[in-house]
Amino acid sequence: MIYEYKINKMVEFSHTDMAGIMHFSNFYRFMEAVEHDMFRKVGHSIAGEHDEQGTPIGWPRVQAECSFFAPLRFEDVIELHLVIREIRNATLRYEVIFRKMVEGELVEAARGSVTIVHVGFNPETKKMLARPLPDWLTGEFCVAPENYLIKKQKK
Amino acid sequence: MIYEYKINKMVEFSHTDMAGIMHFSNFYRFMEAVEHDMFRKVGHSIAGEHDEQGTPIGWPRVQAECSFFAPLRFEDVIELHLVIREIRNATLRYEVIFRKMVEGELVEAARGSVTIVHVGFNPETKKMLARPLPDWLTGEFCVAPENYLIKKQKK
Amino acid sequence: MIYEYKINKMVEFSHTDMAGIMHFSNFYRFMEAVEHDMFRKVGHSIAGEHDEQGTPIGWPRVQAECSFFAPLRFEDVIELHLVIREIRNATLRYEVIFRKMVEGELVEAARGSVTIVHVGFNPETKKMLARPLPDWLTGEFCVAPENYLIKKQKK
Amino acid sequence: MIYEYKINKMVEFSHTDMAGIMHFSNFYRFMEAVEHDMFRKVGHSIAGEHDEQGTPIGWPRVQAECSFFAPLRFEDVIELHLVIREIRNATLRYEVIFRKMVEGELVEAARGSVTIVHVGFNPETKKMLARPLPDWLTGEFCVAPENYLIKKQKK
Repeated sequence: MIYEYKINKMVEFSHTDMAGIMHFSNFYRFMEAVEHDMFRKVGHSIAGEHDEQGTPIGWPRVQAECSFFAPLRFEDVIELHLVIREIRNATLRYEVIFRKMVEGELVEAARGSVTIVHVGFNPETKKMLARPLPDWLTGEFCVAPENYLIKKQKK
Repeated sequence: MIYEYKINKMVEFSHTDMAGIMHFSNFYRFMEAVEHDMFRKVGHSIAGEHDEQGTPIGWPRVQAECSFFAPLRFEDVIELHLVIREIRNATLRYEVIFRKMVEGELVEAARGSVTIVHVGFNPETKKMLARPLPDWLTGEFCVAPENYLIKKQKK
Repeated sequence: MIYEYKINKMVEFSHTDMAGIMHFSNFYRFMEAVEHDMFRKVGHSIAGEHDEQGTPIGWPRVQAECSFFAPLRFEDVIELHLVIREIRNATLRYEVIFRKMVEGELVEAARGSVTIVHVGFNPETKKMLARPLPDWLTGEFCVAPENYLIKKQKK
Repeated sequence: MIYEYKINKMVEFSHTDMAGIMHFSNFYRFMEAVEHDMFRKVGHSIAGEHDEQGTPIGWPRVQAECSFFAPLRFEDVIELHLVIREIRNATLRYEVIFRKMVEGELVEAARGSVTIVHVGFNPETKKMLARPLPDWLTGEFCVAPENYLIKKQKK
């Protein structure tokens, strides 16, 4: 069972803004990229799949947030460490810890959280309807141990 | 004193993704756009200003989150309604309510929150250092009344 | 008959890169935005329409290029001037002239060209097939006069 | 001497648009990514370098174009093949060939061309001034043989 997943990703020039750092909207894209890669890791895709009845399914975002501790810069290689925090009937919530090398040490530069929901698309109304997580997902993924890499609270 | 600010913005083709809706990363860009417009409204810019000592200042994001209730689609005209929620020594936190027309009624499609911090850039080390909000800002902006447009809690 | 169309668009913070100027990829998005607005002007949309047989149609890009003469910066208000250059059986080619105010004068900062093709999507194979431009388009749009605003050649 | 360079890059969800394919603006970002990677390959960076006099230098784009032959889709792994076509006093022009697997064969899906110019930034006026290509560049990179992988002309 998988409860964490890591990839590295480099900050490209087009990710930066005039403040010389990665634009904050790209942190959300990086979180999505590691999530999708974790799906591929177990042989599935976030897009283009159907359920057993042939209904197209998808994974819209319900909520996403990120806290920024240190700027990321062009050509920084970032470690993205996804940790699954919650699995409910139709939703999955994970955190992503962004780490970069600073003076020889990997330090936490940002930490975000995304909640995704499993939906089917009604082919007639085009509406989305939440539905239980697929069996393959609950068979492959589980929630991380309770205190695993939780964010240190400031006193 | 200003505690709210509204603009409309249209969803462009390049904001959409293969699910046929606005990609979630663009909600954060829309929130930034209304914030910057509110700064312009009072004669200031989020970028390129200096303090009285000539130190370049900036407004990095400390935290940003968004909850998504209904999809935004190509050519939807979205009302972005910014409400200032908190003003502290060096930071300002605001919410943005995204509203769209659905069957003749403006409904809330998403709601986000962004905390920005006022920093000076040390010209030698290029590090950012938090500093008190500028006088012009606390002279123009204030926090919204306590229960003004707060999010309804689900029971 | 329309052979030109103008809108203004402001450079947003998220359009900039660490060189302090609008990232070149966004010039292509700006060209697309004025094109889509011109379609709306005559009551049509670049997306979501069907032909008389009910086949979904679309407008993929065949070729796009842009030459950059002067940088665009945050909060610059850019005049985007679209000029239709060629209408063939299934394709339409237009130029967009980017102008910005410099010392009280509107100067050309960039000029691009995009060729779009009218296609139908085969619902079974999902392939795209080029088809003649719709009657409404050739009824509303025409090619600009031969020497109208053509680019000055350097000697 | 290097006259070509290859990397692979996967199409991410955030690269797609509501037509279900990679948005055309991202082809320009992909071309930039392989260019920057080629610079890193020889120990240089497109950003943050200075000349021998300490003047900050940069590489703005002068012209960029792309022709699109086949759509790229989510999770397609694209081969990006950069070929240097022209080296002049202050500018370098390269092509990028986009190839994807179709029924077991690598086929050309798009081909673009970018011209970049070497500039110094005047620290007082912030203006950019073209300058000869650096020695390290002309020592590492050269133009590809005349007919190497040139685009087949349609008859």
